[in-house]
Amino acid sequence: MTQYQAPLKDMQFVLHSLLRIQETLAELPDYASVDADTINQILDEAGKFTGQVLSPLNAVGDQQGCKLAEDGSVKTPDGFRDAYQQFVEAGWPSLSADPEFDGQGLPAVMQIPVNEMIYGANQAWGMYSGLTLGAYKCLSHFGTPEQKKTYLPKMGEGRWTGTMCLTESQAGTDLGILRTRAEPVGDGSYKLSGTKIFISAGEHDMSENIVHLVLARLPDAPAGTRGISLFLVPRQLPDAQGEAGERNAIRCGALEHKMGINGNATCVMNLEGATGWLIGEPNRGLQAMFLMMNEARLGVGLEGLGISEGAYQKAVAYARDRLQGRAPTGERRAGQVADPIIQHPDVRRMLLTQKAYIEGGRALAYWTAMLVDVEAAHPDREQAARAGKLVEFLTPVVKAFLTDNGMICTNLAIQCFGGHGYIRETGVEQYFRDVRIKPIYEGTNGIQAMDLLGRKVLMDGGERLGLLVEDIQHFLQAHAEAPHVLKYQSQLTELMGEIGEITKEIGDRMREQPAEAGAAASDYLRCMGHLIFGYLWLRSCVAAQQQLDTGRDQDFAKAKLATAQFYFSRLFPETRYHLEAARAGADSVMALAEAAF
Amino acid sequence: MTQYQAPLKDMQFVLHSLLRIQETLAELPDYASVDADTINQILDEAGKFTGQVLSPLNAVGDQQGCKLAEDGSVKTPDGFRDAYQQFVEAGWPSLSADPEFDGQGLPAVMQIPVNEMIYGANQAWGMYSGLTLGAYKCLSHFGTPEQKKTYLPKMGEGRWTGTMCLTESQAGTDLGILRTRAEPVGDGSYKLSGTKIFISAGEHDMSENIVHLVLARLPDAPAGTRGISLFLVPRQLPDAQGEAGERNAIRCGALEHKMGINGNATCVMNLEGATGWLIGEPNRGLQAMFLMMNEARLGVGLEGLGISEGAYQKAVAYARDRLQGRAPTGERRAGQVADPIIQHPDVRRMLLTQKAYIEGGRALAYWTAMLVDVEAAHPDREQAARAGKLVEFLTPVVKAFLTDNGMICTNLAIQCFGGHGYIRETGVEQYFRDVRIKPIYEGTNGIQAMDLLGRKVLMDGGERLGLLVEDIQHFLQAHAEAPHVLKYQSQLTELMGEIGEITKEIGDRMREQPAEAGAAASDYLRCMGHLIFGYLWLRSCVAAQQQLDTGRDQDFAKAKLATAQFYFSRLFPETRYHLEAARAGADSVMALAEAAF
Repeated sequence: MTQYQAPLKDMQFVLHSLLRIQETLAELPDYASVDADTINQILDEAGKFTGQVLSPLNAVGDQQGCKLAEDGSVKTPDGFRDAYQQFVEAGWPSLSADPEFDGQGLPAVMQIPVNEMIYGANQAWGMYSGLTLGAYKCLSHFGTPEQKKTYLPKMGEGRWTGTMCLTESQAGTDLGILRTRAEPVGDGSYKLSGTKIFISAGEHDMSENIVHLVLARLPDAPAGTRGISLFLVPRQLPDAQGEAGERNAIRCGALEHKMGINGNATCVMNLEGATGWLIGEPNRGLQAMFLMMNEARLGVGLEGLGISEGAYQKAVAYARDRLQGRAPTGERRAGQVADPIIQHPDVRRMLLTQKAYIEGGRALAYWTAMLVDVEAAHPDREQAARAGKLVEFLTPVVKAFLTDNGMICTNLAIQCFGGHGYIRETGVEQYFRDVRIKPIYEGTNGIQAMDLLGRKVLMDGGERLGLLVEDIQHFLQAHAEAPHVLKYQSQLTELMGEIGEITKEIGDRMREQPAEAGAAASDYLRCMGHLIFGYLWLRSCVAAQQQLDTGRDQDFAKAKLATAQFYFSRLFPETRYHLEAARAGADSVMALAEAAF
Repeated sequence: MTQYQAPLKDMQFVLHSLLRIQETLAELPDYASVDADTINQILDEAGKFTGQVLSPLNAVGDQQGCKLAEDGSVKTPDGFRDAYQQFVEAGWPSLSADPEFDGQGLPAVMQIPVNEMIYGANQAWGMYSGLTLGAYKCLSHFGTPEQKKTYLPKMGEGRWTGTMCLTESQAGTDLGILRTRAEPVGDGSYKLSGTKIFISAGEHDMSENIVHLVLARLPDAPAGTRGISLFLVPRQLPDAQGEAGERNAIRCGALEHKMGINGNATCVMNLEGATGWLIGEPNRGLQAMFLMMNEARLGVGLEGLGISEGAYQKAVAYARDRLQGRAPTGERRAGQVADPIIQHPDVRRMLLTQKAYIEGGRALAYWTAMLVDVEAAHPDREQAARAGKLVEFLTPVVKAFLTDNGMICTNLAIQCFGGHGYIRETGVEQYFRDVRIKPIYEGTNGIQAMDLLGRKVLMDGGERLGLLVEDIQHFLQAHAEAPHVLKYQSQLTELMGEIGEITKEIGDRMREQPAEAGAAASDYLRCMGHLIFGYLWLRSCVAAQQQLDTGRDQDFAKAKLATAQFYFSRLFPETRYHLEAARAGADSVMALAEAAF
C-alpha cells in the first residue's frame, strides 16, 4: 500500500510564496530568528516521521482498535506506543511550547503544517496528542504559577497528554445542562463526580499521565452556562517531585464502538470523587474552556484537511495505475489494453475537486495560523488585536468549511477507486470513515454556522467581516493589473457584494423572526468559505505568476494556475446556489408541522 | 432501537394521487384487474414483513457479516435464512413473475414499492434476492423454452436466486477487457474458466440453487466488447427432474471485507471448467446482459431511496426525543431542561432535505416503474415504445441521482444525531456505510452521467429528452392556473430552457473537443435530476391541492406543500451551480498535466 508523503512543495509554496511568512515573522520579536531554512528543515523531518513511522500504522489502528482491560487501562493498537516514544524523543511535542517551560517556542505557522502531516498520515494516532496543545494554552493562561511549573514542562515534552471533558450523555451542544458536580474539600481542591462521554484519548498507554480539563458545577452554581466551572483533573496526582503519582478517581468505564478513528480511544470517563483544582474563576469555566475550544476547532479543520490529502494521494496513485477504457481525446497507452483513468475527464473532475479544496484549505489554515502568531506576538497591540478578531472570524469557517470539504474530498477519493474503493484492503474508505466525525465534534458544523452568522457577524455589526473585506480590497487594489486578478476578481467582488446584502437582509428580518439566522446559517457559511477561498486562490495565482515570471519551478506554478482555473469555474460557482438558499427565509424550514416529519 | 416503518401514506399518495396508476393500469389488459384495494393490501402486508422481520435483522447483519467455510459454502448472518424462508412461503418472490411460469403477474409499479421497503428495512438482506428479478427477465427474453421451463418457475418462487457475474479484477467499467473463457464442449454446453470479483450474493445458504449469469469470451471471439457472450451457469446443475443436482465447478474463493452491506456476501467466484449454456447469440452477451443491467440500475436507485428512508426515520425519531438548547422562536417544552432539536431551524433544514429528496425520489422511481409497465403491456405499441424510450432516458437518472441523494440524506441523518450518530449502537451510521456502494456498482455514477448525456441525449439528437419536455409542457398547459404551478413553473421552464441550450452548446463543442461531454456530464445529470424532480414535485403539489380541496387528509396535503416549498426554494436552486459548472468546458479539467496531480 502507498504511504503518505507530505506535500512539502505546496506547504512551502503557501508559507513562503503565498503568505511570505518570513516578512511577518520578522515583525514578531519572539519569532524573528525563525528563518526559511529552519522551517524547511522541520518540514522535511516531519515529512519523514509521518511518512515512515505514522502512515504504516494507519490501517493497523483501524483494524485493531483499542482494548479496555478490566482495570480500566486501555491498550492502543500495535506500534502506536512505540511511535509515540519516537515522537517524544525527537522533541516534536515541544515545537511550539513556551520556552519559559523548556519549549522550543516556534510559531503556530510552523506547528500547523506539522500537525497537518500527522493527521494526514494517521488521524487516530494524532488525536492522542492533538488536544494537549489546547490544554497547554488553557493552563498557560489560567493556571496558577505552581500549576504551570508542575504541568507545562511535562505536557510540552509530551510525557503528559491532555484531554477536554465536556460532553455528557444528555449534554452535548447544550453544555448548560451538564450535571457533573465539584464539591470543595476545603484545602483548595475539589471532589468531582459524574460521567463524561465521547472523551477522545481519555485513557491510553502512550503517555505517563493524562491531564483532563473537566467542566463541572459547584454546589451553589446558578443553572445554565453561567454555572459551569473548569477543573484540572490529572489521571495521576503529582507527587512531591511533581511526577505522576497516586491514581486519581477518574476512570475509563467503556470504549465507544465507532464508525471510524478506531485507533483512538473514545472513552466514557467516570469521575467518582476525583480530585481536581479550579482553573480560572468559579462559574466562568466556559470562557476558560473556549480558549482551548477555539484551538481545538482550528485543529479539527486541519484534521479535515490532512485526511483529505491522505485520501487524495491514494486516489491519484490509483487513477494513474488503473487502466480502463480509452481516453476520449485519443489513445494514451497504445501498447496496453486501456488508458489510465486519470485521462478521463470525469475522473479528472473528481481529482481536481480534491486538489482545489485541499490547496485552498491549506492556504486558509496556514493563514489563520499566521494570524494566531500575529495576535500572540505582534508588538503593535492594535495589529495584534486586529489579527485576533480575524482569527475569531475565521475559526468557524476553518472548522466547518474544511471538514465539509473533507467529506466531499474523501467521498470522491473512494469514487475514483470504483468498486475497489469500497473494499477495506485498498485503505481509501478508512479516510471517509475517519473524517465523518469532524463535521460533528468540537461543535457541529451547524453550530459553527450559527457562531459565524450570529456571533461573529450580526452581533458585532459586521466589524470582523469588515476586516476581511478590507484585506481583500487592499489586495485587489495592490494587484489590480495582475492577469489572474483581471480574470477572476469580478467573481470575488460580486460575491462580496452579495454577502454584504444578504447579511443586512437577514439582520433586518431577525427583528421579526428570530429563526432567520438559523435557517440561513449553513448556506451562509458555505458562501463565506468560498469568499475566503476565492481570495486566497487569487493570492495564490499572483504568487504562482511571480514564480513563472522569475523562472522558478514552472511546472508547479502552471499546475497552481490550472487548479485555480478549475476552482473558479467549477467550485466557486456553488455560491450561486447557497446565496439563493440562504435567502429563502425561515418559513422554508419552519412551515412544516413537527408531527409531519 | 426503532424499527423501519413503511411510509405507506406517501407510497399510496404517489401511486394513487400523483400517478393515478389505476387509470394507467386500466389501459393495460394484463394488469386491468389490479385494483386499489389489492395494491393497498399488498403494501400493508409488505410493510408488516419488512418492519417486523427484516428490520430487526439489519444491525445483526452488519455486526456478524458472512462467513466462508473451507468447503466454499457461505453462512449468512443469524436470522437471514429464516427470514428468507418466510419471504418465500408468503409468495413475495413471485409477485411480478410471469403467470405462465406460476408467477402472480403483478405490475412493476407494485413490485417497486415492495422492494423499496425491503431495501429500507435491510439492504444487505434484500440483495440476496435483488438480482433474481433481472436474471429472470433476461432468461425470459433470451432463454430457450427448455431453459425457461427449468429455471423460471423456481426463480419466480424464490427457491433459486440469481446473480450477475461481470466484473474481473482488471475489468470493471471496461468490460471489453474481461478474460473469462468459455470453451464449447460439443453437446451445446460450454466449460467456463476464469475469476469474477465483487459478485453480490455469489454464494449463500438461503436458496436451493444460485443461477449465475456470466460474461465470458468464446475461443474465436473478437477483442473488445464485441467478443463477449453471456452464459447461464447454475451452482448446481439441474437433474433429470429439473431440481438442483450435481455441484458445478463455480465456487466462492473469498469474501470481500467491505465498508458496509456486511450482511451480504460479496464473493470472488472461481470458475474452473464450470458448465454453462449460452444465453442469446454468441458475442452479443453485452446486449443481453444490458436487459438485466438496466433493471439492476433502476434497482440500485431504489436502494438509494430505501436506505435514505430508513436513515431518515431514525433521524426524525432522534430529533423529536433529543432535548438540547431552546428553540429560537421561544421555549417549546417549558417543563423540561431544553427543547427537542427538531425545533431548531438548521436541524429542520437537514430533515427537510432528506424528506424532499426521498419523496421526490419515490415519485421518480414509481413513475419509472409505471412506464416500465406501459412499455411491457400497453396494447398500443406506439405508446409502449414511447414509454420504453422514456425509461431508457430515466434509467441513468434514477441510478445516479437517487444514489447521490442517498449519500446526502444518510450523511445528514448522521449529522442530526451529533456525536451519537458516529457510534455504532445508534445504528444510523450503518445506512451511510451501506449506501456508499450505490454510486459505484452497476456502472459508477460518472458512467451513468456519460450514458445520459452521451448516449441518451446527444446520440439520439435529443429525441428522448424531447419526450420528457413534451410531458412537462403538457402538464403545465393542463394545470396552467393551479396555484402552485403559477408559483413554481417559471423555475422549471427556465431550467428546461437552460438544459436545452447547454445540450446544444456541448454538442457543438464536441466536434472539436471530444472530452466536452465527459467534462460536463456529472453536472448535467444533476440538472436533469432536478428538472425531473421539479416536474414531479409540481405534479405532487397539484395532487395535494386536490386533496386539500376535497377535504381528504389535510395534514398530509399541507405537509406535502410545505415540503415542495422547501424543495423549490432550497434544493432546486442547486441547478444554478451545476449549470455554470457544466458550461465551464473541457479545458477546466484537461489543462492540468497528468504528472501535476
